[in-house]
Amino acid sequence: MLVVMQSNATEEQVRIVCQRIESLGLKAHPIPGAVRTAIGITGNESSVDLGVLESLPGVVECIPVSKPYKLVSRDAKEEDTILRIPTPRGEVLVGGPHVALVAGPCAVETEDQSLAVAERIAKTSCRLFRGGAYKPRTSPYSFQGLGEPGLKILARVRKEFGFGIITEAIDNESLDLVEQYADVIQIGARNMQNFSLLKRAGRAKKPILLKRGMSATLDEFLMAAEYILSEGNYNVMLCERGVRTFSDFSRNTLDLAVVPAVKKRSHLPILVDPSHGTGKRHKVLPLSRAAVAVGADGLLVEVHHEPDKALSDGMQSILPEEFATLADEVRQIATVLHRHVN
Amino acid sequence: MLVVMQSNATEEQVRIVCQRIESLGLKAHPIPGAVRTAIGITGNESSVDLGVLESLPGVVECIPVSKPYKLVSRDAKEEDTILRIPTPRGEVLVGGPHVALVAGPCAVETEDQSLAVAERIAKTSCRLFRGGAYKPRTSPYSFQGLGEPGLKILARVRKEFGFGIITEAIDNESLDLVEQYADVIQIGARNMQNFSLLKRAGRAKKPILLKRGMSATLDEFLMAAEYILSEGNYNVMLCERGVRTFSDFSRNTLDLAVVPAVKKRSHLPILVDPSHGTGKRHKVLPLSRAAVAVGADGLLVEVHHEPDKALSDGMQSILPEEFATLADEVRQIATVLHRHVN
Amino acid sequence: MLVVMQSNATEEQVRIVCQRIESLGLKAHPIPGAVRTAIGITGNESSVDLGVLESLPGVVECIPVSKPYKLVSRDAKEEDTILRIPTPRGEVLVGGPHVALVAGPCAVETEDQSLAVAERIAKTSCRLFRGGAYKPRTSPYSFQGLGEPGLKILARVRKEFGFGIITEAIDNESLDLVEQYADVIQIGARNMQNFSLLKRAGRAKKPILLKRGMSATLDEFLMAAEYILSEGNYNVMLCERGVRTFSDFSRNTLDLAVVPAVKKRSHLPILVDPSHGTGKRHKVLPLSRAAVAVGADGLLVEVHHEPDKALSDGMQSILPEEFATLADEVRQIATVLHRHVN
Amino acid sequence: MLVVMQSNATEEQVRIVCQRIESLGLKAHPIPGAVRTAIGITGNESSVDLGVLESLPGVVECIPVSKPYKLVSRDAKEEDTILRIPTPRGEVLVGGPHVALVAGPCAVETEDQSLAVAERIAKTSCRLFRGGAYKPRTSPYSFQGLGEPGLKILARVRKEFGFGIITEAIDNESLDLVEQYADVIQIGARNMQNFSLLKRAGRAKKPILLKRGMSATLDEFLMAAEYILSEGNYNVMLCERGVRTFSDFSRNTLDLAVVPAVKKRSHLPILVDPSHGTGKRHKVLPLSRAAVAVGADGLLVEVHHEPDKALSDGMQSILPEEFATLADEVRQIATVLHRHVN
Repeated sequence: MLVVMQSNATEEQVRIVCQRIESLGLKAHPIPGAVRTAIGITGNESSVDLGVLESLPGVVECIPVSKPYKLVSRDAKEEDTILRIPTPRGEVLVGGPHVALVAGPCAVETEDQSLAVAERIAKTSCRLFRGGAYKPRTSPYSFQGLGEPGLKILARVRKEFGFGIITEAIDNESLDLVEQYADVIQIGARNMQNFSLLKRAGRAKKPILLKRGMSATLDEFLMAAEYILSEGNYNVMLCERGVRTFSDFSRNTLDLAVVPAVKKRSHLPILVDPSHGTGKRHKVLPLSRAAVAVGADGLLVEVHHEPDKALSDGMQSILPEEFATLADEVRQIATVLHRHVN
Repeated sequence: MLVVMQSNATEEQVRIVCQRIESLGLKAHPIPGAVRTAIGITGNESSVDLGVLESLPGVVECIPVSKPYKLVSRDAKEEDTILRIPTPRGEVLVGGPHVALVAGPCAVETEDQSLAVAERIAKTSCRLFRGGAYKPRTSPYSFQGLGEPGLKILARVRKEFGFGIITEAIDNESLDLVEQYADVIQIGARNMQNFSLLKRAGRAKKPILLKRGMSATLDEFLMAAEYILSEGNYNVMLCERGVRTFSDFSRNTLDLAVVPAVKKRSHLPILVDPSHGTGKRHKVLPLSRAAVAVGADGLLVEVHHEPDKALSDGMQSILPEEFATLADEVRQIATVLHRHVN
Repeated sequence: MLVVMQSNATEEQVRIVCQRIESLGLKAHPIPGAVRTAIGITGNESSVDLGVLESLPGVVECIPVSKPYKLVSRDAKEEDTILRIPTPRGEVLVGGPHVALVAGPCAVETEDQSLAVAERIAKTSCRLFRGGAYKPRTSPYSFQGLGEPGLKILARVRKEFGFGIITEAIDNESLDLVEQYADVIQIGARNMQNFSLLKRAGRAKKPILLKRGMSATLDEFLMAAEYILSEGNYNVMLCERGVRTFSDFSRNTLDLAVVPAVKKRSHLPILVDPSHGTGKRHKVLPLSRAAVAVGADGLLVEVHHEPDKALSDGMQSILPEEFATLADEVRQIATVLHRHVN
Repeated sequence: MLVVMQSNATEEQVRIVCQRIESLGLKAHPIPGAVRTAIGITGNESSVDLGVLESLPGVVECIPVSKPYKLVSRDAKEEDTILRIPTPRGEVLVGGPHVALVAGPCAVETEDQSLAVAERIAKTSCRLFRGGAYKPRTSPYSFQGLGEPGLKILARVRKEFGFGIITEAIDNESLDLVEQYADVIQIGARNMQNFSLLKRAGRAKKPILLKRGMSATLDEFLMAAEYILSEGNYNVMLCERGVRTFSDFSRNTLDLAVVPAVKKRSHLPILVDPSHGTGKRHKVLPLSRAAVAVGADGLLVEVHHEPDKALSDGMQSILPEEFATLADEVRQIATVLHRHVN
């Protein structure tokens, strides 16, 4: 934390701020400047809310300096975390040189639909399958997912085609069930700061895919992951899925720059979801290429064999044959970065 | 929904879109224009995801027309909802001509602290007390609230000073407890789209205060309230607490225009939280005045007798004597609008 | 500027950063912390682009500390600036205890229309008239204003009814003309960072009304004003007119918290434009009340006697009789703040 | 335009709205629905401000349907525009299958600096050189560019190394000069809605590079280009350079999805500026790869041989050898899209 004093702050005011800092068990470092004095603070700041210094006489502003996350930080672990996701056909790696494709319908609608999509995806190299059994929907009158029967369908997809399964939990109750059936537990964007759920995810035995909230800063995103790691679950993948802006042409604005930004600060892998990130079918392929080109560790793509009959998000689902093209193009781009897609 | 066709769409393409619409049990109304054709849709749209029409050949765009909320809408109930909050000293009314003040510390820290703040607030006309026993915090290492012991302290504040109590629930477990101890259950901004929690709140026996999410549109905000009403709890107050923007000078941007916008569309009362809405002590008083001037049905203000020792949000808490001034000024402003503050 | 080093930065790396700082004629103040070292910088930073330090080995981040504006700052002038706007009927004061109303049509359309609106506004206490002769329009096919003939109509309004005239200049050529005809020269939101125009405004003999850009931070807004003052024109009023956000219910989001924020940092008066700020007629009255309640030094309101025939912005124009109500209500609210409306 | 009526609107109210529409020379198409009536409008809407219908009794909302741009639209010209930029060594093509690299320092500082950078860039395949002689700067106290002497230095770079030159004009005066010296005239983000300058650019004899404003919607961006085309200059390239959001880790948020969105609506080529778009050196390479992968028609990259001595934007400039790597990687990625970089 750095405390900036007013240009006309008195020496007495500076002294009082320093005293208050030291009374909190921290150390104050006044830096007298030509125009004004600033006061650096060192020590363990996390235990106190230093913002209150801003209300002392003569203070202009408190500027946070050190980042609040620890376990997710490259300071704590310098090398990339590589996640190992078990599937019936062996492990899928995510992170480091490994780029993972995850595909499947937005929602598990029926067994027939899920098997039909899965069968088509199985023909590509993709080995991870996604599909929602619990669907957070803006309207209470929209399809909310099949619940546990949906999880059973996913289990059948797993068995039939050898996919690892990623599916979303929306509260502690559903997380208990998802943990039994799936290989990766997804926490959705709307729950990124559902801290109760994050703590439960931190006690889960399965890897977590944590999606970025719609207006989450990078610090908040990493702090949400910190909640999971701080409870003991170190197997966390992040996922960028678009942020909310004034955009008039897409549902969200896919913030691809977050990928190198995460990689600079954290050892965790980060995937990109170009389907939610754009909300439009014709943007999924170009943004998938861009995501791999920017250095993402994987893609989460909505695929449906009959998108215009989908019960949710049909607008952003691509066809299985479009996904095959996508898989082919991103593989070539990964090669340029000396990475490989599995 | 309105489907806009490309300027060079063929008659055949228009016909196919109409067929698809009718096959979904809806009615298509083609409107041929000078440049292009648009197709209006009528019928019960909520059961189908019409966005998929956007992927049919010749279609440019699908534009949603009718609003998705029902029970919260003025279409369903024309006159203002007036909530009646029971307190040991009789009911406090919110909505219609009634403007309610709610004050108290961000977090319940100790019994002494809570009683000290409550005693000072009791000297004003304010009759509703707020304080968090469960605190959603960005960092897992920050103070997370006292939990049930905090609720017991609030119960003592209730008994001692006759306040109605408003406090936040952060998951289904805490909601069970909050429902027992408090007079109003708060759902915080980060949980505005925690649909599992909203449904539970809809089955609660107490009124709900629902805060707007950090980047929630008005439609999403009203739909979140619709979740609660659709489960049978019609006692819902909304609360604007600032949205996330590029602002470089305040934690959030308080969006006061949402107040007349809500009043145009919905019969529910809406309060404003100028403390979270600005994040800075010196902005609380001016924005409180502005909130009442714009037509808000109440204020939620953080008050602490020793803000620089607060365990959370000290930066945005005002002193009890500042709150007394605030109460006085907003009372005068309410008079200009022919309303009264209780 | 504060330079934050990585937790594992070597002493050598810290030394090199300090050397580089000193080679730029500045002074480096290393602050060793428990986790990492930070380096404070003092001296005249404005001449160099210190951000480049961020690329030196071992550096995490450069955090700007001192604010870049000087003449607009309360550091330069502690007391409120009160502008004196000459009108045929004597000066109108803006700032300090004085709240000014400015009203008129969005665009000067015809002499009849302008005189009709002016006649009605003249019946209220409002003494400043606004109306655009040069209209920046999103579409090249929209009405672009009458140009100099429009200015002549405004001169007639001035003479006939004794109003002071505020009208917009959109480039150096139009500014030359506006300077001749008007009492206050408006620089619109889209030109807030048209630095060539700002410099010209800084050499004008008339006061300037500078509107905030659609996505301008507070620092950028004040720096734009600094451009004008730095050329010698100290008669500047700021104007908040809404910023761009994700809002789905209003054209812009009126950021009223900027008013106390400006007043904390700068001595310049700040007005609010609730017409552009909301874009909807039914929000103009409530947001006008809120603007005066928050402490604005004036209002800029679009008034039209036949808004549904207006050539531009009819949606946000109110009727003369609605303006009379508005003037009455804000006068009462100003009284609560011990200010008076002229 | 579509007019949505209230659910309880009377037949009389619907009739009056239709009358008003027809009185404006347009045709009204009422669409009675189960819940409410909507009214479609056809005819030449551009001449009237239909938003005012929103204030008629019984109307909920007016929803714009047809897009306001004409000449920039794919409706006007279906095939991609390919620009031909003359250079001393022959034409450089931009658009269609052609991806163009543009590189150079943020600002022309001295002849030595410009020639040094140019010499290094000349060793790559890049054939277009950028560098600012007129610099729009947030602060009046920052380096504002060399002006005409800077243009002369660029002319020398052109002659010496055979580059085509792209440089910014900031007002009508500088545009006159830039038109003489440069091969492409750049209009910067801050001037995207400086309509006076856009009109002047529309009368220029040279191609225009138009940067997207910091908070410009896609419609506004295309309308700004429409200003240029409507004056007769059809040689326009667009350029995405990042938009303003709440991001806490980058200066702007590069909105790569705008590339496929532009390509769907318009025939104009669109480039990407990853230097301004991220503001950080370490993000330039990954975002450059992403931009070409998403389908951009070129890149604008800031290169400086001594970035830590740069007078402006050193933080986001990369070294010539980093640019050589960048050129190599994007060339490989372009191949995946069956395009070639020149």
